[in-house]
This record gives sequence, structure tokens and C-alpha cells, in this order.
Amino acid sequence: MRAGVLHPDLSLRIETRRSPRPGPGDVLVAVRAVGVCGSDVHYVRHGRIGEYVVDRPLILGHEASGVIVAVGEGVAADRVGERVSIEPQRPDPTSAESKRGDYHLCPHMRFFATPPVDGAFAEFVTIGADFAHPVPPEVSDEAAALLEPLSVGIASVRKAAVSAGDSMLITGAGPIGLMIAQVARASGLTRIIVSEPDDTRRRRALEFGATQAVSPEDPIDPVDAFIDASGVAAAVRAGMDAVRPGGRIVLVGMGADTMELPVNLIQNRELVLTGVFRYANTWPTALALVSAGAVDLDAMVTARFGLDELADALDADRMPGTIKSVVHPAVRRCDDTTQLDTTGAAHR
Amino acid sequence: MRAGVLHPDLSLRIETRRSPRPGPGDVLVAVRAVGVCGSDVHYVRHGRIGEYVVDRPLILGHEASGVIVAVGEGVAADRVGERVSIEPQRPDPTSAESKRGDYHLCPHMRFFATPPVDGAFAEFVTIGADFAHPVPPEVSDEAAALLEPLSVGIASVRKAAVSAGDSMLITGAGPIGLMIAQVARASGLTRIIVSEPDDTRRRRALEFGATQAVSPEDPIDPVDAFIDASGVAAAVRAGMDAVRPGGRIVLVGMGADTMELPVNLIQNRELVLTGVFRYANTWPTALALVSAGAVDLDAMVTARFGLDELADALDADRMPGTIKSVVHPAVRRCDDTTQLDTTGAAHR
Amino acid sequence: MRAGVLHPDLSLRIETRRSPRPGPGDVLVAVRAVGVCGSDVHYVRHGRIGEYVVDRPLILGHEASGVIVAVGEGVAADRVGERVSIEPQRPDPTSAESKRGDYHLCPHMRFFATPPVDGAFAEFVTIGADFAHPVPPEVSDEAAALLEPLSVGIASVRKAAVSAGDSMLITGAGPIGLMIAQVARASGLTRIIVSEPDDTRRRRALEFGATQAVSPEDPIDPVDAFIDASGVAAAVRAGMDAVRPGGRIVLVGMGADTMELPVNLIQNRELVLTGVFRYANTWPTALALVSAGAVDLDAMVTARFGLDELADALDADRMPGTIKSVVHPAVRRCDDTTQLDTTGAAHR
Amino acid sequence: MRAGVLHPDLSLRIETRRSPRPGPGDVLVAVRAVGVCGSDVHYVRHGRIGEYVVDRPLILGHEASGVIVAVGEGVAADRVGERVSIEPQRPDPTSAESKRGDYHLCPHMRFFATPPVDGAFAEFVTIGADFAHPVPPEVSDEAAALLEPLSVGIASVRKAAVSAGDSMLITGAGPIGLMIAQVARASGLTRIIVSEPDDTRRRRALEFGATQAVSPEDPIDPVDAFIDASGVAAAVRAGMDAVRPGGRIVLVGMGADTMELPVNLIQNRELVLTGVFRYANTWPTALALVSAGAVDLDAMVTARFGLDELADALDADRMPGTIKSVVHPAVRRCDDTTQLDTTGAAHR
Repeated sequence: MRAGVLHPDLSLRIETRRSPRPGPGDVLVAVRAVGVCGSDVHYVRHGRIGEYVVDRPLILGHEASGVIVAVGEGVAADRVGERVSIEPQRPDPTSAESKRGDYHLCPHMRFFATPPVDGAFAEFVTIGADFAHPVPPEVSDEAAALLEPLSVGIASVRKAAVSAGDSMLITGAGPIGLMIAQVARASGLTRIIVSEPDDTRRRRALEFGATQAVSPEDPIDPVDAFIDASGVAAAVRAGMDAVRPGGRIVLVGMGADTMELPVNLIQNRELVLTGVFRYANTWPTALALVSAGAVDLDAMVTARFGLDELADALDADRMPGTIKSVVHPAVRRCDDTTQLDTTGAAHR
Repeated sequence: MRAGVLHPDLSLRIETRRSPRPGPGDVLVAVRAVGVCGSDVHYVRHGRIGEYVVDRPLILGHEASGVIVAVGEGVAADRVGERVSIEPQRPDPTSAESKRGDYHLCPHMRFFATPPVDGAFAEFVTIGADFAHPVPPEVSDEAAALLEPLSVGIASVRKAAVSAGDSMLITGAGPIGLMIAQVARASGLTRIIVSEPDDTRRRRALEFGATQAVSPEDPIDPVDAFIDASGVAAAVRAGMDAVRPGGRIVLVGMGADTMELPVNLIQNRELVLTGVFRYANTWPTALALVSAGAVDLDAMVTARFGLDELADALDADRMPGTIKSVVHPAVRRCDDTTQLDTTGAAHR
Repeated sequence: MRAGVLHPDLSLRIETRRSPRPGPGDVLVAVRAVGVCGSDVHYVRHGRIGEYVVDRPLILGHEASGVIVAVGEGVAADRVGERVSIEPQRPDPTSAESKRGDYHLCPHMRFFATPPVDGAFAEFVTIGADFAHPVPPEVSDEAAALLEPLSVGIASVRKAAVSAGDSMLITGAGPIGLMIAQVARASGLTRIIVSEPDDTRRRRALEFGATQAVSPEDPIDPVDAFIDASGVAAAVRAGMDAVRPGGRIVLVGMGADTMELPVNLIQNRELVLTGVFRYANTWPTALALVSAGAVDLDAMVTARFGLDELADALDADRMPGTIKSVVHPAVRRCDDTTQLDTTGAAHR
Repeated sequence: MRAGVLHPDLSLRIETRRSPRPGPGDVLVAVRAVGVCGSDVHYVRHGRIGEYVVDRPLILGHEASGVIVAVGEGVAADRVGERVSIEPQRPDPTSAESKRGDYHLCPHMRFFATPPVDGAFAEFVTIGADFAHPVPPEVSDEAAALLEPLSVGIASVRKAAVSAGDSMLITGAGPIGLMIAQVARASGLTRIIVSEPDDTRRRRALEFGATQAVSPEDPIDPVDAFIDASGVAAAVRAGMDAVRPGGRIVLVGMGADTMELPVNLIQNRELVLTGVFRYANTWPTALALVSAGAVDLDAMVTARFGLDELADALDADRMPGTIKSVVHPAVRRCDDTTQLDTTGAAHR
């Protein structure tokens, strides 16, 4: 199969690899669409994220959808042909974390596109059958791929412990900030403030759920919860100051390893601060929200690329107006994408 | 002042009473709109609800809005003139229940229109200043009154512990069932099934949030939560059978004191069953939802009455198509209601 | 191997069976001690529990400990020789219930001694490696077996959502009632009332954690939580009446499929009623409590039997003073039990 | 009455003041015992804590017990003579925080010994009747006073969300650290590690609940929860590193306004970090634990002082071996304390 491979020297090459074979309990998926995530871009530019180092060739990409083309031992053969969204993690189901429902915190996790585990910028991938979630016809291939970053948004809003009629501050209007805003809107929050320095992004936040978009220097009325999607320490500090007594703060944006934080606020207001690493048990929710039209993922796709254009896809965040770039590994170049199903219509 | 008074002989008379005076911490409210609740109707027809007996003349009505016209000691004088929605309860703030946030369960509660405490079918009422919630101009007087039954809906959905993308069964499409459906929709639930024997009511449920309206005999796919708004034992039993393992059941509809319940389901599926009596800390949520247009209360008003027509108002549930009847105590007859503000427009 | 087998004609025979072989991910355990549970007794006397019918020969017993003597594929070979307590369930780790941490509610569960799955009144059993919990030397073989009913107690107390200084009512002072009382005491509850008609059992409850033991007809001051371990409808109803507003009720005792319950209490006091089926993630807690001496399981063993005496063991509940009978499948008759390690001392 | 007054020039004088009079809903308490808290000491030495400045004469002391000698309007007269423990806060019961059960976070709080509100180093104080908690005879006056710091311990352990059989790290073995250790032990935690640089304090920690006492440089096995009672940033950082994925951290010790914290741990392990300011609804729990003997407060009293010796009492933390100093405002000098009831025996 063809795959986009990142090498330790930071060269990105389209290579021919042996296609993976599904092990017991796995399915083999012909990949249809893969979203580009900031972490993919970070690996390409820096060769590492924290302790994870690209010291061997690595296939990136972990926001993926496709069609099951083969099944491993113990998996029902009639799943072949099923359109699926891939939850790109392989926890050990016997770990204490998995058994108490936090499988995303399993210490034995193997996660797509995290060294040394290959990801989905390739024609085929394998995944555990229960992590290949069937997709109904009204959800497009691209939306099915973007259930992954939507899951980050869902996990974040869950940890914020809000409900209909509550208020939330979100700092950062990148793709994850917009996902969070969409989930907040779908959850009935009636005041959703997005703080973001970039004017274009502020405007877009209003399209994706924000009821108010402000600059970082603007004052903010107290909110029930605050989710940081920027990773910027100053944004976190300012946001914490806006949270009402007993309110919650969720750190999603990746930034420095340590931050100078106002512990006096945490104590005096008994704030609750937590973080989101990945997600567990979010796909059913994500599918329900997208199928019902409560969250719009298709509108977040601003650029499409074939596998030969992977380098461009991984650089597309530098183009103004980009939200989400999607790679179609079965296609060589983007001018082929006229043939692509980007609406799910073909499946209805 | 003029007031509609229910006597122990079940006669309902419009009488002149001395207007109440606001005690310390209270406000005096000129009543604008009062919704008719099933409990008002029950008192009129039976003279009692459970252990609460109308053994002295009683003013009914507990879904009320109005304008503050005077304040008691310790209340800011500038609240005079404020449009308010009345949360019709007077708990003892020093009880253990109040102090832990369950003030609605306070054993020393005095609640509107519950013997021997008078209610709001009158020109004036007093209430604790913190239970007179300021209403923004975009919320009409009638909607402000109906924040009370909406609060029952909010309290019910909170206890169901659901979130966006979840599913819910609601049995009974009376006013409370519709309130619950609206709150469920506002909370992002994507499958909201209302089970109701009456065809007209089923159709209406679809207008107020249900994604599916079924007959009691129809089969129901498993749901995350089930709220009974019927009080009918057979509905409760059938509903419980539809709840997924670990799911929740909330009993809101008033029915018999005891019910034969399937404890084997409660055990084998570890279901969680609870009930809603009243509500606490719901008004901010109710106001946020109505102000944002996430819940529509004005559309639930199907009949309006002046105080002289109170008897008709209390009988209006017998007319087909009725959802909510609203009494305007400052007005004598309904043909005056052309002068009423039923949209809030006058206040913008 | 030798095993005690219950036949559909309710005959109980000691037979020679082929020893099971550990599949992938399994361990083979030489059984050391097996507690007799009320459900075993019920199968022997009635041939069924609810929908579970003994229509083929079945090995009973699900409270078991032993020593690992072989491992299946994928299990570390150095586990051979490990003393283990068996958590007698095999859920499907890919079910939605398992993935959210409720693996005990998995619809594909295979549970020891539940038709058609064999149990542990046998010389050898297999179990998933992660359900064979290593036992430290200070925990005896018998105590290791009784971690299973202790887990029912832990799961029950967890659902009661109590904490140190709270109060609890427990109805029924059989083995499960005593387990609950011990867990309640270990959790710092300062008022633990056991209601039980039998005088001997009442006295014993005081030894195992109750601060007060009363007769069913005695009045009971309000409690924070109530756990029924009797399965008797009258006990459940009386107990519910003792629960404070907002308090919790947990049904553990198995009784009739349906019960006439006071829904007015559930509504007026907003009580929360739930049930315990089995348990998840309890073994680490159970081991910690027994190792620390906070719960005493050895003192609950009142009779010991070899495998040839299995019929007697299953009838021992009829002897006054019995709490827990334990079968030692590797031993033929109880007079051999002088050789048994009932204290764990041999392993220190 | 006589009272110990701190002046803005940091002089501490015993003065004669007019005794306070109980307002509506209040009781007047003749003070029997007052614990010395680190915050009292801090005010005496620095004249301020954060934004709270002693710019007018102030009576310190907020850990107090006594006897009701008069009642205000609306309080049952038969409370006169009652021995009480004082919960030293006056929240506004109408604030949003109070109404949802977080009355300690009420923005209108008036708290004992926090400028400009006087405290309890005086012969008499007033407090809301519902914040004067009746004390049973088996609880001594001194223990009744120390229910206040015990409440901090209870509030901390509640936020740690642990249960019987869990593990906890506590950094700092001062009085609050010891209170937390005692509550952890009473709650059934089976591994309670106290980290503390001082050898004497480490030894004492083992007497008050710790199962293990270590030096800050010692390695620590993973724990379910971590409570910091030191206020030292290095201790907080090291403690956070010991918390298992999904575990909780509670900051109780007061230190710098900001701390450099490992947000990568908060994110990668999805830790939950919160703080304790004060407490709500803890007195019933505190009384239950002390009455039952599950927590020993009398053993924490290491020095006693009369009111004339207040300056010595506030300096007693400098003497090695001090845990808690208690002032008896009705007594002039400590050699009178032979007359004091320090066991509660006089009240039995």
C-alpha cells in the first residue's frame, strides 16, 4: 500500500509499504479520509512531542474514517463493507484504568501516530473491531474522520460538568476550540464566550456556536466553566479569573509542561481544575450529535488533499482561513477530489 | 384586594381580602399572570391532595409573575418596579436540607397554594426577595409565570443525569411532559420519545421537542433515561423495561401512593429510580433557556382568563387542545385580555 | 479432576471430569477454598433462579480462591504458583457496558455457577488472568474466597454514597448483611443499625459492625442510607420510611420480581432507589480492607467441608449459628481440614 | 467583657469591651475554649493575610466552643444553657452560593477573626443559632472548639473523593495535616502516607492516622489522592507526581498566591486539582466522628492558656512539640486551668 512516512530526519516521503493484516479481534480498514491535526504538524516540524520522539520512520494521521475490507479472527465477517469512523486507540482492556471506564488512561495504550505506532495517512490500517464505529449514511466520510477531534470537544465539555442554561468561556478558536463551542451549543449552554486574538477566527467562532467572541484583553463576566484550547499560560490565568466560585476549568490546549497558576483562586473560590488527554466512550455521543445535525463537521473542512499532497496538507495551517484540512489517502492529488464523497450522499 | 378563594365546601368565590404586607426580607408583588396547574384543579375538585386538606378558605395558584410594588425591611428599595417571576416557596434557610442546597426538601417549607398557605390567584402576594427573580424584557408575563412548571421540567431532567446525544423516554404529554421534552431538547438529547395514548397530545409532543411520539402499546428501543409524567403505574412499569443497564428513572407524575414495581429490573440492570417533588436553584436556568429561545413557553398558553373567570380557568383542562391556561388576576374578564402583554414586547 | 455436579433432577454427584485448559489470556487455578452462597443452595433446592435453569449438569460455587498452576497464551509464565482470589466473571471487554466501567452489567457476561457456565466446586477452574487477583500472605485461602461476598458488600455501600460519620440501616443479618455492616464500619459510619427478626443473628450483627441491632417492629430514627439484604418487601417498605430526604436505598437481597413500593416517599423525599446485581472494580478495595484488618472474613467461617461432603455444605444454612460454610475441593472430608491453612500463616 | 485585641500597630492588648448582643436569629455564647490557628498567628506577626488587613482593632480566634447564655429574637429560649461548638461563619442565606449548598463560598460572608469581623478570644460572642451546634456530654469543651479545624480536614477529604480501602498522600504534618490524617483513617483509607521534613512531626503523624511517614525526598508509590497541607510549592509538585491517572489533588495549605504547576501531569493523567477555602455542612460529621471516638481531638491539645496569656498562646507554635494551643477566655492564667473541664466529664 501507499503511505506517507515521516523520517527521523524530518523528511516526509510517500512510500510503498506492506499492508497491515488484521489480528484477532481487529478489522482492516481501507482509509477514506484523514483529518490533519496540530500534533501531526508538530511532529513534522519538530520530530517530537514531549517524550515521544520520531526515531524511526512513522506514519502520521489519527483522525480517520474508511470502509472495512477484512476482519480478523473472532470478528463477524458481515462487517466487511461497513463504513466506519476509527477511534484510534488500542488500550489494554485488562488494565485497572480500562476496567473502571478510563481506558484512554491505560498505561499500555498504543495510539495512532504516536511513536512507535503508525497512523492513518495510508491506504489501509487495522484497528480493534470495537474501535471501528459504524457510520450511518447521513454522515460523510470527512465528518466520520472528524469525529475524532469532536471527541476531544465532547470529553472536554463533559469534564466541565455544565448543563443547559449554563455559561462557558473558551480560550482559543482553533479547530479544537470550535469543536468545544459546537458541543457547548449542542448541550444547551446559553452564554458561550470565545476569547481569541485573531479577528478572522473570532468571526468564525460565532458561526460555530459562540454567542460572543472577544479579544484576550476584553473583560469577561463570570462563567460557570472555562475550557482552555490555546495552551497559552496568560490565557489560562485570565480565564481562571473569570470562573465563578465552585466552577470548573479544563485544560485542553497543549503548551508548556509547567505553568505559573493562581492557586489562591483555586483555594479561595474552590475552583476545580483538570485536563483532557484523550477521550473514552465518546463515539456514540459524537455520532448522535452529527447525525442529528446538532454539530456540523462538514463545514469545518476548508481544504482537501490527495496522498501525494500530504506535505501541503501538513502545511495548510499556515494559510489564512484554514480550519481543517483533510487527506484522502486513496486519491493521489486534490484535483481528483471532485470524485470524492464529501457529503455522505453516496451512501444514503 | 380581590382574590379567588376555595372554601372547604369546594365553592370557589371571588372575594375581597386585605392585601398582604411584606415582612422583613420580603417583596410585595402585583400579580400579572398565574398559570393553572393540575394540583389547583385537583384541590378544586377533591378538596385535598394526600395529607394536605382544604379545611380553611385557601387562595390557589402557584405559577405566578408580576411587578414588585413594595419591599419589606432589609430589601433594596430600588427593586420596586421590577418585573419578577415568583418561585413560590418559603423554606427555612437554617434547616439542614436548605444548608446543603436542597431547600425544596426543607421540612419547614411554606409553599404557595398548599394548605394553609395562600397562593397567587389574587391581586397581590408577598414572597422572599430572593425568590422574586427579575425577568428581562424579552420574557413575557405569561412566560415568567410558567417558569414554575418549567422548573419542574428542569429538576426532572437534572435528576435523569443525561447529556447531549443521550436518549430519553417520557411517558405522558401533559404540560409537565411537554416541559420535560422541551428541556430535553434544549439539553441536546437527540432521541426523545414521548409515549402518550392521546393522538392530539402525541402530535403536540412533536412540536415541543419529542423526536418520536408513540402509543403506550408501541415497543421502545432502549433509552438512557426515563421520566414518567403520567403517574400511571402501567406506564412506569413499561418505561422501566426500556431503560438500559445503569440508566435512570425519574417519577414526576403524581399517582397512587404505592406502585407494584419491577425490583428485579432495578437489581439486574442496577437502574436508579428517584422522584421529583419540587425544585431548587432552577430559576437561573429557566430564565437563561427562555431568554435564549431554547424553550418556548408562550406557545404553551392555550387559554386566558380574568379573575372573575377563575372557575372556567380551573375547568379548562376539560377542553380538548388545552395545554396551559393562564389567569390574569388584575383583569376581570378574558375579553379584557386584548390589553394584556402576552409577549413581553411592552417591556423591551 | 473431581467436581461436585448438580443434575437437572436435582441430584448432586461427585464426578470425575476432564480438567479445563486455560485459553488465551486465562489462568488455570487449583481451587483451595469455595464459600457456599445462598444462590448455590437455591439452585440445589429449586433447580433454577429466575430465568436461569439447570437443564444440563452444572458445577456450582462462585466464591473461590486457589493457586495458579498453569497459564494460557499471552499470560506471564511467572504467575504460576501465585495464590489468587477469583473474581468469577467473564465479561466481554468490548461491550459498551464494559468500556464505561460497568463490566458487571455486560450483556455477554459468563458468570461462574450460572447456567450454563460451570463454577468452582471442583479441583480446577480457569478464569481470565486479570480476574485472578494476587493475594498477599496475610490473607488466608478462606478469606480469599470470601472476597467475593465482600465485594457484594463493597458494591452495595458504594451505591449508598455514604461517608464517614453518616448513618445506615441494614435489613437482614445474613452473610451479605454482615458483609455490608463490616464495610459500613470500615467506611467510618458511626450509626449502623441492623434490623433482623432473629435474636442470634442480631447479636452477631453487633460483632460485625452494627452499632445497634433492632427487631423489625422497632422504630428507627432517620438514616442517611438504607440497604436491604433481606429481599422481604415489608422490610424494604419499613426501611424506606426511615430514610432522610434525599437519602439512598440499595436493594441487594433477592426476593420477589416485583414489590409494592411507596412511590409517594420516593417523590416527596426525592429518595434515590437502586439495586446491586454484582460488582465491578471491587477486588482491590476488598483486598486492601482485609489486609489492613478493617474487615474480618476468617471470623465469618463457621463450618468447613471436603468435596465429598458438598451436600452437607449446601445444607449447612439450616444449622443454627451458621454464617459461612467453606468447601475445600482438594480435600475429601472435613476431618482432613486439620491440614488446611485457614489463617494464611503457611504463606507468610 | 474582657477580650484580646490586636491593634494595627501589631500590639496585642487585653481590653474591656462591651459584650455583644444577640440579633434576630442569633445566640449569645459564653466562650469556654478557643483553639489557636496559624492564621491568628499570621495576623499577629504580619498584620494581614492577603487582602485582609488589620487596619482597625480586631479580636482574633475562630475555633471556639462555649455555652449559650442568651438568645435573640426568633430563637427558642430553651437553648439557653446548651453547650455548643461554634461554626464561625455568617453567610448570606439568600446568595446563589448559599442556596446551592456552598454557603462557605458566599460573597457576603462575615467570618470570625477576619477583618473587620471580630473573633472569639473574648468572654462572649454572638453567632447565628444554626451555626451554634449542640455538643453532647462526651465531647469536651476543647474538642468542641477543635471541631473547626477538624471541619477543614473533613472538607478536604470530601474533595479528595476517596473511600474505604483507598490510598492518600498528605504533605505537611502540622495541625491541619494531622486532622486530615485522622479523617482519612476514620474513612477507612488503608494507606495514608504523610510526607514531612520534621522528624518529631513525622512520628506524631503515625499516632494520628498515618500508616507511613516519609521525608520529602523519599519516593512515594502511586496514590489515589493527594492533599497538600504545607503550602509549599515543591511539596505540591512532588505530591502531584505521585497521583494515579484520574486521581485528585486538594490544596489546603496556604502559601504563595501563584505556583509553578505541572500542567502536563494534569493533562496527561487527567488529574483533578482543587482547593479548600473553608467548609460547609461539616459539623454534623465532625460531631459524629468525635462522639464515636473515630477522631481524637483532646489528644491534640498540647498547651493551655488563660486570656491574660494570649500572647504566649499565639507564640506557642515556636515551642517544639506543639500541636494545638487552646485559650480559655474565662480564665486569666493557665495555672487556673486545673479547674477546667478538658474531658467533657463534667457534663456527663
